[in-house]
Amino acid sequence: MSPQFKRLKLELLKPVPSDFEISRNQVPKHITDVAIESGIVESELEPYGSYKAKVKLDVLDRLQDRNDGKYILVAGITPTPLGEGKSTTTVGLAQAIGAVLNKTCFANVRQPSMGPTFGVKGGAAGGGYSQVIPMDEFNMHITGDIHAVGMANNLLAAALDTRMFHEATQSDIGLFKRLCPIKKDGSRDIPIGLTYRIKKLGLDINKINDWTNEEISKFVRLDIDPKTITWKRVLDLNDRSLRGVSINEAPTEKGLIRKTGFDITVASEVMAILALSNSLKDMRERFGKIVVASSKNGDPVTCEDLGCAGALTAIMKDAIKPNLMQTLEGTPVFVHAGPFANISIGASSILADKIALKLAGTSKSLTNDEQIKEQQGYVVTEAGFDFTMGGERFLNIKCRTSGLKPNVIVIVATVRALKVHGGGSDVKPGQPLPFEYTNENLEMLELGCINLQKHISNALKYNVDVIVAINKMSSDTAAEHEIIKRKSIEAGATDAIISNHWEEGGEGAKELALGVIKCANKEYESQDLTKEFSPLYKLEGTIEEKIEKIAREMYGAGSVSFSDVAKEKIAEYTRQGFNKLPICIAKTQYSLSHDAKLKGVPTGFEFPIKDIKASIGAGYLYALADQIMTIPGLATKCGFMNVEVNDDGEIEGLF
Amino acid sequence: MSPQFKRLKLELLKPVPSDFEISRNQVPKHITDVAIESGIVESELEPYGSYKAKVKLDVLDRLQDRNDGKYILVAGITPTPLGEGKSTTTVGLAQAIGAVLNKTCFANVRQPSMGPTFGVKGGAAGGGYSQVIPMDEFNMHITGDIHAVGMANNLLAAALDTRMFHEATQSDIGLFKRLCPIKKDGSRDIPIGLTYRIKKLGLDINKINDWTNEEISKFVRLDIDPKTITWKRVLDLNDRSLRGVSINEAPTEKGLIRKTGFDITVASEVMAILALSNSLKDMRERFGKIVVASSKNGDPVTCEDLGCAGALTAIMKDAIKPNLMQTLEGTPVFVHAGPFANISIGASSILADKIALKLAGTSKSLTNDEQIKEQQGYVVTEAGFDFTMGGERFLNIKCRTSGLKPNVIVIVATVRALKVHGGGSDVKPGQPLPFEYTNENLEMLELGCINLQKHISNALKYNVDVIVAINKMSSDTAAEHEIIKRKSIEAGATDAIISNHWEEGGEGAKELALGVIKCANKEYESQDLTKEFSPLYKLEGTIEEKIEKIAREMYGAGSVSFSDVAKEKIAEYTRQGFNKLPICIAKTQYSLSHDAKLKGVPTGFEFPIKDIKASIGAGYLYALADQIMTIPGLATKCGFMNVEVNDDGEIEGLF
Repeated sequence: MSPQFKRLKLELLKPVPSDFEISRNQVPKHITDVAIESGIVESELEPYGSYKAKVKLDVLDRLQDRNDGKYILVAGITPTPLGEGKSTTTVGLAQAIGAVLNKTCFANVRQPSMGPTFGVKGGAAGGGYSQVIPMDEFNMHITGDIHAVGMANNLLAAALDTRMFHEATQSDIGLFKRLCPIKKDGSRDIPIGLTYRIKKLGLDINKINDWTNEEISKFVRLDIDPKTITWKRVLDLNDRSLRGVSINEAPTEKGLIRKTGFDITVASEVMAILALSNSLKDMRERFGKIVVASSKNGDPVTCEDLGCAGALTAIMKDAIKPNLMQTLEGTPVFVHAGPFANISIGASSILADKIALKLAGTSKSLTNDEQIKEQQGYVVTEAGFDFTMGGERFLNIKCRTSGLKPNVIVIVATVRALKVHGGGSDVKPGQPLPFEYTNENLEMLELGCINLQKHISNALKYNVDVIVAINKMSSDTAAEHEIIKRKSIEAGATDAIISNHWEEGGEGAKELALGVIKCANKEYESQDLTKEFSPLYKLEGTIEEKIEKIAREMYGAGSVSFSDVAKEKIAEYTRQGFNKLPICIAKTQYSLSHDAKLKGVPTGFEFPIKDIKASIGAGYLYALADQIMTIPGLATKCGFMNVEVNDDGEIEGLF
Repeated sequence: MSPQFKRLKLELLKPVPSDFEISRNQVPKHITDVAIESGIVESELEPYGSYKAKVKLDVLDRLQDRNDGKYILVAGITPTPLGEGKSTTTVGLAQAIGAVLNKTCFANVRQPSMGPTFGVKGGAAGGGYSQVIPMDEFNMHITGDIHAVGMANNLLAAALDTRMFHEATQSDIGLFKRLCPIKKDGSRDIPIGLTYRIKKLGLDINKINDWTNEEISKFVRLDIDPKTITWKRVLDLNDRSLRGVSINEAPTEKGLIRKTGFDITVASEVMAILALSNSLKDMRERFGKIVVASSKNGDPVTCEDLGCAGALTAIMKDAIKPNLMQTLEGTPVFVHAGPFANISIGASSILADKIALKLAGTSKSLTNDEQIKEQQGYVVTEAGFDFTMGGERFLNIKCRTSGLKPNVIVIVATVRALKVHGGGSDVKPGQPLPFEYTNENLEMLELGCINLQKHISNALKYNVDVIVAINKMSSDTAAEHEIIKRKSIEAGATDAIISNHWEEGGEGAKELALGVIKCANKEYESQDLTKEFSPLYKLEGTIEEKIEKIAREMYGAGSVSFSDVAKEKIAEYTRQGFNKLPICIAKTQYSLSHDAKLKGVPTGFEFPIKDIKASIGAGYLYALADQIMTIPGLATKCGFMNVEVNDDGEIEGLF
């Protein structure tokens, strides 16, 4: 970290207070101080209040000649109701590298949706003494990016339905007259947003007044087949009533009623595009490519056809700038984007990673190895769900899109969660834990370690070294930790290190940090210096081949079956030229397989693809192995019922 | 203005470039400089980027001992398709007082909705050389207040529907067990949000385990009558497809389908509450009072009953802080709240006005009249639509709620718009203006002045002096201006002054500013020094009496008729104790009457009240004299089609 870095001191209490109390008892630094310490210059910073700021993309131009810092991916074992503390480990590791070891280190995390914030009790900012602060600001609004995503998504939806209404109620000439009205000088006023379609159709914009009726019709009629519409509206709330709705029921809409539904905002393709864009220009192009439906002829209808992509970009022009916040110990955090892990990549943005890697990087003019090592910084980021889902998408989709290569993969495991995979009894939230989880049980743990081992061996297929982080709980025993270490090394991990960041903040993750740094710099004797990151599959294969590769090599499937719907979609996407995209597989997070009940490491199963959908703007197809709920509901007793604002204007009861 | 005030120079071009070009060619000051010049101290400011900031409510505590500055309300004649330039006059007048005359002066304006921003071409930031800048930031997001309003509104909607779902699918005991689960120590976990209902029902929270089944049932069942639900969801977009929708159509919702609709976000009661709250605590209480439906017994069901008011407050805790921006000449502007004028007050927030009035006020320790006059500052704010709709609501609802008293009412008129009221031909947007509007026509103008005169005499009923601002157009003649002046004085205006701020910025409004200052300080000889502001009606009358008073004395109605629905609602609201609230009448803005076709000053008509609705949290009933559309639609050719973001990341084509 830079010489002027000011560590925020922790006053560690036992028992550990609630996340919210810990957050409130810490006085954060002003965000401009965090920025200066991070190497961001004043003109690149846009503060939003005292503790949040946007960082302009200009920083990438200024630092383009630097080497990148080291890129650390945190992933987990197959999730259980007990949690493994992946976000907490991400933040704790960054606190250790940054505040304890005094290296430049960024934690790059996703912005949480407000749906779960008010739905279930439980934050997304890490926990205990490893948190992003202020946690209430982290969990609500931040700088409004999710709201911008919602606006952009819903403007496109309104544009789509309104266009269908106008096409249904106007003649070709009527539409033409209104879309491109004649100006006083006799020429036509052609909105810039419609010029792209004119170009795509091969029409001559300079001869617009000479177009034939057929050409006019081609231009003005998108001729959308309502059955093919895939674009839904979104809200950033757990509003189950909107899962299925009929719209256009007002008398003004002339009976054009159609069935649709709402998703939660983070499930929007706009959010995935925010995460996967490499620049503002790239984002603009991706918006243009969004496919919202097909025409009755079977041609894809895009956001560009609707003349809407420029406006979406305008709405998102501030959202594309990553948000800077800080950890409980005052180290910098980028919070940016948060695509819904159930159907998308579940990772924070490429741009935040690129900026952080440059800020954590070294000058190319340095030649002295010791100096380089001294100044070497780190970026710790996270993939949603377990390594095999989140990590796979991170490496095959996000890294392929960014061109970035991770230096270390950290896989987080806990004794308790591994016991679930070793056959432990069912765990229910709010109920006392069964005996085996709070007492030593070496056999059960040893059995459960096969799940960890599978994730390790999966990770190694990408030629990246793995460190296992054993996230310590008070009831763990030394013998249990030894088993995890042994099993990890057996499976090919470079090391397995105990970490106690939840109780102790960065100090508790110091050993883990030292191991990660050593691994990132290839200083373990066991490390092969010639290995280089490579994705699992090539884009050139067929859609089926790519899915089979992921299902067999990552999930352990014996075979893959495709439903008739999936087969039709594959044929259609192939015909439309969308078959060279990477694949995001949507399946349960609770098993390596498609069946949540199968713990441990199931093998040989038939993996069923029920449907395939397209996020052409974001740049991937997603294959559904399950019914995925894209807008959660609220429980009878809800998070929101606990929330109050006290007389000092502080939020109480958020978590 | 403070000694260090730095005026931004205008380079006046002719013909006047587009609003967007003018905005972009001006380099705004950093918002912290605007704040310091305005008397806001650093700890009270939360910058959002370089040109926007939130101002903490703490400033009111610091300045509580000061006298208020002078409070200037800008209103208009009955709107015509030609516009009168009310927002432009508000901003231009503030530029003149602040930048030209060097007095402290704030323009307090509404935040525009993004629906119209992308729907029709046309900004809300003023225009020409009288604008709020940067205009693209003004027209999109600002600091996210409208997004917060949407979230709060929609959380309440989700809470309502989810509660109905859970009540429909669970027994009393099931609901009770879930809402207030038993903790490990045997006591019940009662969410703070539900304690208000327990209190309201007169149940003893300390004896919760002893409640009878009947008491439990009373507590857990809101027993909402679906037919009575008035709370709708909102989006900040012109999405006509959502005017009428059916929800709960997904199979998970067990057939509880119901019809509802979406409003535009600014039409939400949450937005009206934001505008009318006097403090954070007051806002919290108002949220609690929001009535969303009736129970099957006919009791009002509130946001508090749903346990949701604390969460709404948490969502809105930053939105309540007014936003600081600046005019084209660098004078301060508060942009805060913007309730939909069609059904609500159509004015910016009370808190912004209170803060601005204190900042523009004088120290109570000053005793020297000259010193007081020297230091006296001004707050110029605007009421939506014409004086008789917007001004009436401003004075009877907003001022009653705030306790503030306006010192001057400015009524804006143009020669062209008055000619419409004098019988000029129909005007259609985009088509050439008929002859009479671009050439002198004294007879038509003189006839049309009766509309202006009616607004003047209406304004005088509140005991506030009126200055008429004649917003100059290039085709006006001196003889035409003379007629307006004469007619204004005849009707009781203190003065009528020509202003040319659109073409010339503050310089163009210098004479108007001098007149307004003179009037605010009671220095016109004609002014009666003993007059004191009083609202039009008392709250104690019946609902019918209040409506009749407004309809007869303001609109010129001969009588008022109430539909059967309206009569039933009046009986119900009276029974529920909501009859002591002020009334917001929703009618066409295009006539003093309920009939848009009646120009000039119609009299003796029967004014029809079709329905009455309640905004109990905001604190008024609204009576509908018309079908009011609460979510606009998009045209075939839309504003969004012109929008692009250029290579420098700047928005093009927004206006």
